[in-house]
Amino acid sequence: MSRFLNSRYSSLKPYVPGEQPKNISEFIKLNTNESPFEPSPMAIKAINDEATRLNLYPTPTGEPLMSALSKRYGVPTSRIFTSNGSDETLAFAFLAFCGKDKGVCFPDISYGFYKVYAQLCCVDAMEIPLDKDFKVVPEDYFNSGRTVVIANPNAPTSLALTLDEVESIVKNNPNDVVIIDEAYVDFGAQSAVSLIDKYDNLLVIQTFSKSRNMAGERLGFAFGGEGIISDLNAIRYSFNPYNVDRLALVAGAASIEDEVYFKQCTEEIIRVREYTAECLKKMGFEVLPSKTNFLFAKHNAVGGEAIYLALKAKGILIRHFAGERTAPYVRITIGSMAQMEKMLYELEAILNEYK
Amino acid sequence: MSRFLNSRYSSLKPYVPGEQPKNISEFIKLNTNESPFEPSPMAIKAINDEATRLNLYPTPTGEPLMSALSKRYGVPTSRIFTSNGSDETLAFAFLAFCGKDKGVCFPDISYGFYKVYAQLCCVDAMEIPLDKDFKVVPEDYFNSGRTVVIANPNAPTSLALTLDEVESIVKNNPNDVVIIDEAYVDFGAQSAVSLIDKYDNLLVIQTFSKSRNMAGERLGFAFGGEGIISDLNAIRYSFNPYNVDRLALVAGAASIEDEVYFKQCTEEIIRVREYTAECLKKMGFEVLPSKTNFLFAKHNAVGGEAIYLALKAKGILIRHFAGERTAPYVRITIGSMAQMEKMLYELEAILNEYK
Repeated sequence: MSRFLNSRYSSLKPYVPGEQPKNISEFIKLNTNESPFEPSPMAIKAINDEATRLNLYPTPTGEPLMSALSKRYGVPTSRIFTSNGSDETLAFAFLAFCGKDKGVCFPDISYGFYKVYAQLCCVDAMEIPLDKDFKVVPEDYFNSGRTVVIANPNAPTSLALTLDEVESIVKNNPNDVVIIDEAYVDFGAQSAVSLIDKYDNLLVIQTFSKSRNMAGERLGFAFGGEGIISDLNAIRYSFNPYNVDRLALVAGAASIEDEVYFKQCTEEIIRVREYTAECLKKMGFEVLPSKTNFLFAKHNAVGGEAIYLALKAKGILIRHFAGERTAPYVRITIGSMAQMEKMLYELEAILNEYK
Repeated sequence: MSRFLNSRYSSLKPYVPGEQPKNISEFIKLNTNESPFEPSPMAIKAINDEATRLNLYPTPTGEPLMSALSKRYGVPTSRIFTSNGSDETLAFAFLAFCGKDKGVCFPDISYGFYKVYAQLCCVDAMEIPLDKDFKVVPEDYFNSGRTVVIANPNAPTSLALTLDEVESIVKNNPNDVVIIDEAYVDFGAQSAVSLIDKYDNLLVIQTFSKSRNMAGERLGFAFGGEGIISDLNAIRYSFNPYNVDRLALVAGAASIEDEVYFKQCTEEIIRVREYTAECLKKMGFEVLPSKTNFLFAKHNAVGGEAIYLALKAKGILIRHFAGERTAPYVRITIGSMAQMEKMLYELEAILNEYK
């Protein structure tokens, strides 16, 4: 920290992303919920075709991505927002809808970045405990008097609320914005997009990082009422108007249009996830019923950190979270079937050493 | 604006980028200081090679871009920052180095976004008038007690300070950060990068948008003391850690390594600029001595807005800024020689109508 930094940030604790070792190619990487599959071939082609036009700024209207999203989700472009990763939409939303007089609340076990945004924006944050089964209890968020942020499905727990449960939270916070972060929704949960016509206080955020295999492109999108979307645009045009680059605009549009590939990839992840979950259970794991591209699991004899370290020593990266309730668990991203077979093979060997 | 927007933003006036008409392909576009040239062929190849790896997050270390910048500019990576366009570095710097107790100052005629950042961060902004010849007067910024932001060369005036003048400002604000925005420096001005070892309060910002022909990729970079750079990283890791995507990282690195193409493009812009300036002078324009990829010029008989509108009607977009001192002028981006010849031809016809 320099002597020049604004004192309000003196105790800022930035987000710590999943580890990315320098010799990453030597690892099977199951620690940051990336997809094992390439982007849609149509997206790759679109990137190659667009690269020679990079001397020009991106379209300020977000075309052709906006039209593709509008068509795919049946939402007019005036209700869509795009950003440099969904993290940026979250950051803009904290700026727009939280403040000195408006705190925020979110589950005590969730995406770690919510706490960081609250710190950055100097916003009072209330962490609401998950229940004993790691579930979000909708009633705990009713009439919160705060901006509500809920990841659905939640991370790292992998559990999803039903659409009715989400609606109950939105309905019971009529004077506050409810942000539903649907980064993992395409792996089996119900999206709240259908509710944006009904509630002007709902913001639904999605991403190309997981189900669309483009974590490296940095592209997020969101749906909401026209008021909320225009607020986000006011922040964007005061922070970084050209936040989505030309390649992301064409790759995103092409990816959205390639529904066949999208279904193929997400269905394969779900298939491999269910297989992996069954194998883990046979090895003595308790596995939470996942609606995401990862599993959150606890072994009946070996601790989470020990498993994490032992797999790392074998060249397989998974994620372990400190914290009283999460420490017994590991979070394992669903990779390709071959990667999971290798992980399961090494895991079995590790567990045998404990017998 | 929705009923949910934080009241501190109720009077926010977002930045208005140069116009991008929908039927843009019908225009010769000389209004947003883009390059008429494609990115380096090496950058295009790097993008094509990397596209299949977009399922993985970018490297958090910013490689391979960081190493390329370090080598090219002779600066260790601990003193380099990269961002999603240089606008994002500016936004992060306003968050980090301005605040309730620390105002900002910048020239009254400069990049219009500085005012917007000050508004967004609720920072007191002092606009310091340029002198009668549109020059920044270094002494006006001495011991300002504020964060200082100066575009060098300045926009839309196109004028540059010497390195000694810049150093005098940095030296005479020892307790405040001085930000030198060098978006246009490669077209003939002196960079202040060499001063970062000497002054811990200096931040030098550059971009790939102008001299490296990649406005559409959104890639900025900055040099400063380790303290300042670590402050910017603290903000970045609390806002959007993966702010630079994989394609930008490889395209940026390849572009930096292709020094031959960089020189070829910047020298051609300078050659076309000098030619265009001479032609404009012959037509009765007063042209400020530009060190940028644009010209700021005033005709002795026809007003700036009239010229702007007449050229637009002929399918040529240039930029006009309202404001007492800028209204008589137009800002013309330097395109290819063919584009400038066409612009000059149409301009001559327009001026003849006023005779």
